[in-house]
Amino acid sequence: MTILAYGASAADRPLEEMAITRRQPGPHDVQIEIVFCGICHSDLHQVRSEWAGTIYPCVPGHEIVGRVAAVGGHVTAHKVGDLVGVGCIVDSCQHCPDCGEGLENYCDGMVGTYNSPTPDAPGHTLGGYSQAIVVHERYVLKITHPEDQLAAVAPLLCAGITTWSPLRHWGTGPGKKVGIVGIGGLGHMGVKLAHALGAHVVAFTTSPDKIADAKALGAHEVVVSRSAEEMAAHAQSFDLIVNTVAAPHDLDAFLVLLKRDGTMALVGAPATPHPSPNVFNLIMKRRSLAGSMIGGIPETQEMLDFCAEHGITADIEMIRADEIEAAYERMLAGDVKYRFVMDIATMGA
Amino acid sequence: MTILAYGASAADRPLEEMAITRRQPGPHDVQIEIVFCGICHSDLHQVRSEWAGTIYPCVPGHEIVGRVAAVGGHVTAHKVGDLVGVGCIVDSCQHCPDCGEGLENYCDGMVGTYNSPTPDAPGHTLGGYSQAIVVHERYVLKITHPEDQLAAVAPLLCAGITTWSPLRHWGTGPGKKVGIVGIGGLGHMGVKLAHALGAHVVAFTTSPDKIADAKALGAHEVVVSRSAEEMAAHAQSFDLIVNTVAAPHDLDAFLVLLKRDGTMALVGAPATPHPSPNVFNLIMKRRSLAGSMIGGIPETQEMLDFCAEHGITADIEMIRADEIEAAYERMLAGDVKYRFVMDIATMGA
Repeated sequence: MTILAYGASAADRPLEEMAITRRQPGPHDVQIEIVFCGICHSDLHQVRSEWAGTIYPCVPGHEIVGRVAAVGGHVTAHKVGDLVGVGCIVDSCQHCPDCGEGLENYCDGMVGTYNSPTPDAPGHTLGGYSQAIVVHERYVLKITHPEDQLAAVAPLLCAGITTWSPLRHWGTGPGKKVGIVGIGGLGHMGVKLAHALGAHVVAFTTSPDKIADAKALGAHEVVVSRSAEEMAAHAQSFDLIVNTVAAPHDLDAFLVLLKRDGTMALVGAPATPHPSPNVFNLIMKRRSLAGSMIGGIPETQEMLDFCAEHGITADIEMIRADEIEAAYERMLAGDVKYRFVMDIATMGA
Repeated sequence: MTILAYGASAADRPLEEMAITRRQPGPHDVQIEIVFCGICHSDLHQVRSEWAGTIYPCVPGHEIVGRVAAVGGHVTAHKVGDLVGVGCIVDSCQHCPDCGEGLENYCDGMVGTYNSPTPDAPGHTLGGYSQAIVVHERYVLKITHPEDQLAAVAPLLCAGITTWSPLRHWGTGPGKKVGIVGIGGLGHMGVKLAHALGAHVVAFTTSPDKIADAKALGAHEVVVSRSAEEMAAHAQSFDLIVNTVAAPHDLDAFLVLLKRDGTMALVGAPATPHPSPNVFNLIMKRRSLAGSMIGGIPETQEMLDFCAEHGITADIEMIRADEIEAAYERMLAGDVKYRFVMDIATMGA
């Protein structure tokens, strides 16, 4: 099956419309007509080869929502016409302990939605900036939100699960004080989810302009992290801080805000290292500096169901496919509240 | 009460015999005739002002064992003649959540055995390189080892508990694979304790010369950490690594050896930072880089009782008080198996 996609043929080339192929659905496959695809900062890193190992042509996109167009003969969980989603994972080994525990995101054989090896042409996966995708049923999520919220559900597939997973893993709920560092695509979801989970939520931003917005998202308090005084007022008080900032920054400023046994979970990876954290800040209160990467399939479904129940979606700005380069530039400037979503119907128009 | 001690009057002065005073025991105090005191690397850092804030005169020493010489009227747990120990903590606020949980080591009001503020003369605490000490009963540990092992028990009060606490906190036992980095004062205790707790123990050393010794201490395997090949054979296999090395080194080399959800606990603090760890190594397997500082009083007693039951002591080399400067030089050169212990009876001789 040949379809249209938006991708780049080289690191220094802009994204442009191109034809790609998808495999015919196998017995366990779901063929999805993509309706919307969220735009993640990782897309830009990968397509511009800012991380190692980008393979071209590169079609990014791992916040995919759409409708089931066909299913293989053994597929039982999904049927034609269902609203479904695909996140960052389209395959994994399916037999290791990680897969067994539903943590396919940590499987060594995890196949990313784009830029991962696959037997399909052209030999690496191509993502959701495209009209269709064919995915093994295990990695297809059910969407129970109302259909008119479909575009705003797309970012849950990466930004949502990437914050949900550490929030749940480290025990976010009533009686817990949770910080979210960075109020962008990931951070705005982190604030919404931590609030809905019942925690006392403190948003950290470098920009006083975002205070009102962060409160509107659900933050009980907002701290301008450039203010040493505001930061000091929260010393040793957090159970968990989820840090979404991928740019190198001073981790110690946040580590000292953790209680004894508190954890700061990094979900963004900087291209160059953070300044080395002060070991005393870990030792003195038995604190942990941890990382967390997206989330497994069962917890992604749990998050989607939770969001549907609680009426949670991302705050989005819709773009046409041919606006992707401009959207990247605005994303780099932090000029989006809080996630761009591509309307796939604009391809080939 | 005036007694003899070994201390320094300034950062650039050698330790020498000096007279110091101890308070009369209050109702909850235990007066201890010190018999032996272990020599910890921290003693050297502090007395030579390599860490901030050394107050002079400085009398180091926080691996104290001895005999109860007198008790205050309200003391019930200890009586004259008992063998007892004092570690790194001689007081704390006694009412915060940390103290409530028996984690006095994390109390903001924790009073160190030396170099901490105290109402006693000269205004800061003076440690165990001395003939006697007076300590609130809460911070006095019972020693049930045979008396002829008393000198070798001394290092349990710091080196023992500093490794025991993270081993226990992060769940060392049968079915767990635990690494101990650095086979010095702390590391040799870590190997012994992890082995006795039933874990599969792997010792890491930079020195092939220590392989046989580490196995004799109880390591099931020994890895020369300078061998990339040996290190790679253990990739993604550890539940816990306790890293005792205080010198700056490449943490990533060990982080990649952790399983998903594994933790590396640092118990040594370098004077200059480690190279900044690679965030991807934390994110990719939800690993944690944590710190741990000594241990609380109840867990110190638990460790001492465990060691008495299992016949565990430190491997020591006895020194006279006037050999302390030479011992420091040998300690800096790594030339001790594995802990110096000062025979306090040699003071004033």
